[in-house]
Amino acid sequence: MNTQFVPTKRTRLKRLSKRASYERKIIYQILDEAFICHVGFLCDGQPVVIPTAYGRADDVLYIHGSVSSRMFRALADGIPVCVTVTLVDGLVLARSAFHHSMNYRSIVVFGKAYVVRGAMEKAKALRLFSEHVIPGRWAEVRHPNEGELKKNLVLRMPLIEASAKIRRGPPIDDQADYASSVWAGELPIRLAIGAPINDPRLPQHLKAPAYIRNYKIQSRGTKLF
Amino acid sequence: MNTQFVPTKRTRLKRLSKRASYERKIIYQILDEAFICHVGFLCDGQPVVIPTAYGRADDVLYIHGSVSSRMFRALADGIPVCVTVTLVDGLVLARSAFHHSMNYRSIVVFGKAYVVRGAMEKAKALRLFSEHVIPGRWAEVRHPNEGELKKNLVLRMPLIEASAKIRRGPPIDDQADYASSVWAGELPIRLAIGAPINDPRLPQHLKAPAYIRNYKIQSRGTKLF
Repeated sequence: MNTQFVPTKRTRLKRLSKRASYERKIIYQILDEAFICHVGFLCDGQPVVIPTAYGRADDVLYIHGSVSSRMFRALADGIPVCVTVTLVDGLVLARSAFHHSMNYRSIVVFGKAYVVRGAMEKAKALRLFSEHVIPGRWAEVRHPNEGELKKNLVLRMPLIEASAKIRRGPPIDDQADYASSVWAGELPIRLAIGAPINDPRLPQHLKAPAYIRNYKIQSRGTKLF
Repeated sequence: MNTQFVPTKRTRLKRLSKRASYERKIIYQILDEAFICHVGFLCDGQPVVIPTAYGRADDVLYIHGSVSSRMFRALADGIPVCVTVTLVDGLVLARSAFHHSMNYRSIVVFGKAYVVRGAMEKAKALRLFSEHVIPGRWAEVRHPNEGELKKNLVLRMPLIEASAKIRRGPPIDDQADYASSVWAGELPIRLAIGAPINDPRLPQHLKAPAYIRNYKIQSRGTKLF
């Protein structure tokens, strides 16, 4: 396997190119840490962007949808798609307004999405979504029956054209502004998990299992903190 | 002002319509709490989705970009745009794989984006971005000079066609599955802020001001926790 995606006209960063990466390893780490993507596609000539869950298996991105979603049906024909994943890691506070920024890791994937029709691949993809978001859950829950499988739309998007854009570290100010007496630095941001909330209909003796109580988003991918 | 957006063919939710809202107040609360949007537009016939900062002033969304960004220049012509904002509030863990879900609040805005050419409106929008992300910062920092203003591209998108999609609360399982002995409930998620990190070039006597030390993302909008 190629360790790098080949930059294309669409994925090559012209501006701030030092923030770009085409490394498969880096791109896959970001895809594996996040769990929501924003999918862009055309619907009646209008760009539409919707958030949804996804999972990755090797060089394929599986996108979660519903058969009854009009917008997702538009993806069914193998039309061009852009999938973007964004992790915000912090606010970057410079001495000048202009140099304020954010630390982030984002991925853009261009390509086509195809409907997964085989029941076996579809079931595997649903397991993938589940284990991607909350490892350990799949082994416990009732698995989808035939009717439920039919209601799920799963899209398959080969990972061929992708790039990452990453900013880390302190602000970069104009030389003259370093003499300023304004505080400058970073405010880290991450997703945090609260205590589990029992379903009101849960029998009292049922307690949240360890994989729920100890759930950490960051432990699923690259550690941030 | 109309308190409701008029649902259109594009914004009316056909599926899970009980999750939809067209209330201006609800839509604006979500826009005011989040600070990253995903902008979808066409570039050479290909849908492109990029994350960026934004701000809202009354019924106008201002989108932050750069003059040197090829993609943002494509927006300059008033082409159709879709802006999506997503807040993930939690994982919803059902007894069946099929009924797993997420709690979230998302906004989709359709419309056209126009370049802000007036220096005054542009400067106001930059202040808006700053105060939106980190209230109190603008008063402290060096404001943009003429050259910096020119390097910023600000887009203006009137809020005309918008909808919210919101899911809250516990899982909804099939009746038969409530007899299951699997734990079910919610895992709340929110953005958390870490301790400020000083810029390595900061003089030692400069300490982070209160608006940085006490920064809370949720305090800027609807409180979640």
